[in-house]
Amino acid sequence: MRIAVLGAGSWGSAISIHLAKKGYEVDVWDRNADLLNEINNNHTNTRYLKDIVFPSNIKGIHELKDCIEGKQVVIFAIPSHALRSVCELAKPFITKEQVLVSLVKGLENKTYKRMSEIIEEECPNNEVVVLSGPTHAEEVSAGIPTTIVAASKNIEAAEYIQDIFMDANFRVYTNSDVVGVEIGAAVKNIVALAAGISDGLGYGDNTKAALMTRGIAEITRLGVKLGANPMTFAGLAGIGDLIVTCTSMHSRNRRCGILLGKGMDLKTAMESIGMVVEGVHATEAVYNLAKSIDVEMPIVNALYDVLFNNRDPRDAVNELMTRDKKSEEEFVF
Amino acid sequence: MRIAVLGAGSWGSAISIHLAKKGYEVDVWDRNADLLNEINNNHTNTRYLKDIVFPSNIKGIHELKDCIEGKQVVIFAIPSHALRSVCELAKPFITKEQVLVSLVKGLENKTYKRMSEIIEEECPNNEVVVLSGPTHAEEVSAGIPTTIVAASKNIEAAEYIQDIFMDANFRVYTNSDVVGVEIGAAVKNIVALAAGISDGLGYGDNTKAALMTRGIAEITRLGVKLGANPMTFAGLAGIGDLIVTCTSMHSRNRRCGILLGKGMDLKTAMESIGMVVEGVHATEAVYNLAKSIDVEMPIVNALYDVLFNNRDPRDAVNELMTRDKKSEEEFVF
Repeated sequence: MRIAVLGAGSWGSAISIHLAKKGYEVDVWDRNADLLNEINNNHTNTRYLKDIVFPSNIKGIHELKDCIEGKQVVIFAIPSHALRSVCELAKPFITKEQVLVSLVKGLENKTYKRMSEIIEEECPNNEVVVLSGPTHAEEVSAGIPTTIVAASKNIEAAEYIQDIFMDANFRVYTNSDVVGVEIGAAVKNIVALAAGISDGLGYGDNTKAALMTRGIAEITRLGVKLGANPMTFAGLAGIGDLIVTCTSMHSRNRRCGILLGKGMDLKTAMESIGMVVEGVHATEAVYNLAKSIDVEMPIVNALYDVLFNNRDPRDAVNELMTRDKKSEEEFVF
Repeated sequence: MRIAVLGAGSWGSAISIHLAKKGYEVDVWDRNADLLNEINNNHTNTRYLKDIVFPSNIKGIHELKDCIEGKQVVIFAIPSHALRSVCELAKPFITKEQVLVSLVKGLENKTYKRMSEIIEEECPNNEVVVLSGPTHAEEVSAGIPTTIVAASKNIEAAEYIQDIFMDANFRVYTNSDVVGVEIGAAVKNIVALAAGISDGLGYGDNTKAALMTRGIAEITRLGVKLGANPMTFAGLAGIGDLIVTCTSMHSRNRRCGILLGKGMDLKTAMESIGMVVEGVHATEAVYNLAKSIDVEMPIVNALYDVLFNNRDPRDAVNELMTRDKKSEEEFVF
């Protein structure tokens, strides 16, 4: 089994290490040649994964063509805004037998397309499988027990990836609900941002659990409108990933939210985080998407006002708490 | 509006304070006369809620009859093992117009009956409403924003309680799925115990999120077999309460799990916690219940072996990770 990984960031590196430990030959490509040289020369990637030694069956490959050709599986592990352009560069070398795997989380700017939709548009003859779940890259690279979902419209493709990736430290569940898995992944950072604001305001565990639970409820509402199975959001790519994101200090989104809750303005908070805060862009995208397809998302709306209309976050929480009386039962079977 | 609260522990006291702040007259009864005297004389309950001053419209009442008579709502806020006996003492004074509210979480010893089933058996002419959700008593008594579910077979009774309890710091959602709400509450401590063991073993956020998500999946399986709506477990009384329990150091169950994960035996760990560790008893009850109605609960089974058969927790995690390959899709709609 030979596998190509496109992207040598933290997640691309972690999945490469996991697969190499299983004995597969793993070739990694990245636009940043320095990362590939460090992998080849020192067997490390200190920018993204400190203190981790790469197995010697991982090789950095500078030419996309050489990385992709002859592999059974091609994994996309690149930032969401770069996925379309990397697909365009890669597709001349991709053959229809190769199974394509997306580790990318997000929605495309303006089109609101899911990441697997982009891959399918660019490579329409290939099976595409989405991997998503509560998976800090640092923990996966260290071999800490982790679970993940492999989602594909073709369940046999998902089972093929399950067989390849699974071992005693990495348990893979299949799911045919690609829409649900990708929507969960794309919008969880919004809830992490809101949970961070609640922490920054000095609210409690009750408040944060409320934001997470009612957050996943409105994400479910959005997903169902887009064709998802509501139960997917109760799974690893939904509430599972949300739990990891909302409770970890590793989350940039949560850290940015804490600063906002303490009264910092958005520009200063984002500068102080120093890296992309995906939840900010995701809030704008999901706010517009929900409006365009008429889905009620009160937490997203409140967050949008806090981020872009200078709304006081304490007022926003108060408004959420004093909305019309509701039932919890939207989906009764 | 006059309300009786039976039980002056932390949750009974917190809900009394919340309701008294809304302006209702609240009478509180408890078997422990000292607690009632302290409430009446000092407006405090330092054993259960430090640093909180009780409003003067809360009164400690020593006679159960005097506490119950003339009230529109009677709230049960007592330990699960004492509910049946308190119902027997109370029922001569309860009239059929009174709405009975349960704050009690658990399953009855040996019968595995839910708490509202006990109340209905003892008081068959009354409407019963269950309140459950992510609600640390300390935070509710301090007025921190909190959400909760009011569940009843009669949705009008749930809406009546929603109207009475709701304000800007306490948002109430209704739900007609009493079985789902009570099963979620009764078994969440089992998952908290397992999550604590994972922390004690030194595993990561990925592992804990996996245990919580797959934990709620098997609780959902149990609930559905008992007649619940699977979506209830994605709500406030399911994953919401689980999040609060599994991430808080206030949780005795989580703290007990951490000690077990570090290698302490069950007896010593329970002694060192010093109070009842409900998850231990719940594990035994749910293990037997699931076996008797043929529901697959691998995390409960593994935990049962760790607690009662001296199973090494690391082996148990390894067995969970290497079970047969599975799909995440049990409930597709």
